[in-house]
Amino acid sequence: MKDIVVIALGGNALQKANEMPTINNQLKNAVTTSNHLVEIIKSGYRVVITHGNGPQVGNIMLQNEISKAMVPPMPLDVCGAMTQGMIGYIMQQAMYNKIKNAGINKPVVTLVTQVEVDKNDKAFENPTKPVGPFYTKEEAEKLKTKKGYVVKEDSDRGWRRVVPSPLPQKIVEADIIKKFVNDDVIVITIGGGGIPVMKDAKGDYVGVEAVIDKDYASEKLAQELNADVLLILTAVDAVCLNYGKTDERKLRKVTATEMEKYIIEGHFADGSMLPKVEASIRFAKSKKGRKSIITSLDNAIQGLKEEAGTIITN
Amino acid sequence: MKDIVVIALGGNALQKANEMPTINNQLKNAVTTSNHLVEIIKSGYRVVITHGNGPQVGNIMLQNEISKAMVPPMPLDVCGAMTQGMIGYIMQQAMYNKIKNAGINKPVVTLVTQVEVDKNDKAFENPTKPVGPFYTKEEAEKLKTKKGYVVKEDSDRGWRRVVPSPLPQKIVEADIIKKFVNDDVIVITIGGGGIPVMKDAKGDYVGVEAVIDKDYASEKLAQELNADVLLILTAVDAVCLNYGKTDERKLRKVTATEMEKYIIEGHFADGSMLPKVEASIRFAKSKKGRKSIITSLDNAIQGLKEEAGTIITN
Repeated sequence: MKDIVVIALGGNALQKANEMPTINNQLKNAVTTSNHLVEIIKSGYRVVITHGNGPQVGNIMLQNEISKAMVPPMPLDVCGAMTQGMIGYIMQQAMYNKIKNAGINKPVVTLVTQVEVDKNDKAFENPTKPVGPFYTKEEAEKLKTKKGYVVKEDSDRGWRRVVPSPLPQKIVEADIIKKFVNDDVIVITIGGGGIPVMKDAKGDYVGVEAVIDKDYASEKLAQELNADVLLILTAVDAVCLNYGKTDERKLRKVTATEMEKYIIEGHFADGSMLPKVEASIRFAKSKKGRKSIITSLDNAIQGLKEEAGTIITN
Repeated sequence: MKDIVVIALGGNALQKANEMPTINNQLKNAVTTSNHLVEIIKSGYRVVITHGNGPQVGNIMLQNEISKAMVPPMPLDVCGAMTQGMIGYIMQQAMYNKIKNAGINKPVVTLVTQVEVDKNDKAFENPTKPVGPFYTKEEAEKLKTKKGYVVKEDSDRGWRRVVPSPLPQKIVEADIIKKFVNDDVIVITIGGGGIPVMKDAKGDYVGVEAVIDKDYASEKLAQELNADVLLILTAVDAVCLNYGKTDERKLRKVTATEMEKYIIEGHFADGSMLPKVEASIRFAKSKKGRKSIITSLDNAIQGLKEEAGTIITN
């Protein structure tokens, strides 16, 4: 059987920070992203695609806020589901076209995917993840009185709602994703880290207003699929020590143990490179022969050949 | 093998006309709908679920309009994809819980699904399907100058954008849906009639701003899956002759040929019962042994036993 690679696309795969979030820009970026992904498929991997949804879910929440007098706003889990449909469609269409033009005969599907979190996760005691629009101090004070709303000052740009970022415990649809992957279907799944759900008193799943880190969720998925490689694609071509400083140094091949030391030394930024590095370590240590790669989209195929990027092994 | 039934849920399965479109109302309706669907599964059918998206996509378009100064509006195909994620998630979660509580061990998946339309479809010459918010005459005049926008007066309530409603030619993801159905997976698909796509000059799929009738799309899917039954669930428990008049008469068991006569006699309203009847006739005539049923959600299981609803056979 061909090796399985779980590819976690960063937000910039569809939506670049310096571009307007129009559909044309997103379609254009999806085509570029698909070019790289098809090269990976051609090189012989079975591919599972995951992706972030930060800019897209932020825009939906902003629309919810602006339109709330006319349209009842949807909770964050439902907004996340909307981005799975939206981004999934854009990527699925771009991949379908690219695969066909490359003469490859494989189906591409997007699965709406729930990820279970633990209601006792410490993250629920201390929401930290900013989501949606900025508010003035007055608006923020008012929002704080709403049930389930925590609002915090976000640098100097204003106030924002913060939500918990619990750890992924289980990919609810993992069995069906596994079945697909074994059938060599290209699967787009756990968009935005998955739709967070938890069990209620009856054991039923209910949605929860939270954000699951997409790299942690991708790592969990990679384990559940018994994948060989976790490929995290981001804005930089490698993980760096002393990032942005004069003595910045790119990491090429490192062990999980070395990486743990670098974490302790404080080399990686919270909410940015740190979760990618942590997810990579966890996957590399989870089973013999597994490896994680952190690199850019442009270097993805070289990364898989260990000719670029940061390769983390046990 | 167990019989396959394609169940087309009407808009009221999730969003009732007299209720606010809040998430709580939609979740509550999804639970009720799931109760009925699980009874159908228990009675031994393999089930494929399709659904409308009228109220939901209307709300997204309204949000797009209200927020357009802040967030670039998405085209109708992308809005449709968003509703597939949203409604799919809500239904998938409700079904998952209900199935588990019924002691049934079957996966439930939602597939983001594209439906191909023909660029030469006559519908593109004459857009008729109203979508999104109402406008004043002045706003309407301005909108008409936008490329691809056709705006028409909608009864006495104002002006609305109208889009083409082309016929579904092909369910792009049909093969993978078929594979799932054969594996006895419960599939939620072609939400809102599917995301309309057409082939460009290079033969690539591109999204198109149109609405595919969900009953026509469900019929096309039922044929492609070689289904046994097309079950169209709507607000009334049977198709009527002289609907709403003193001599109203419910139809119980009718042949496709009789139904065609009733269409010519003008018994069924355009854009309401007519497409359901036409889809039902088409499916019943497509292959020996196939039948269509039009009834309400409450009567779904009785309909399948031919004890309620309108049964259309060849």
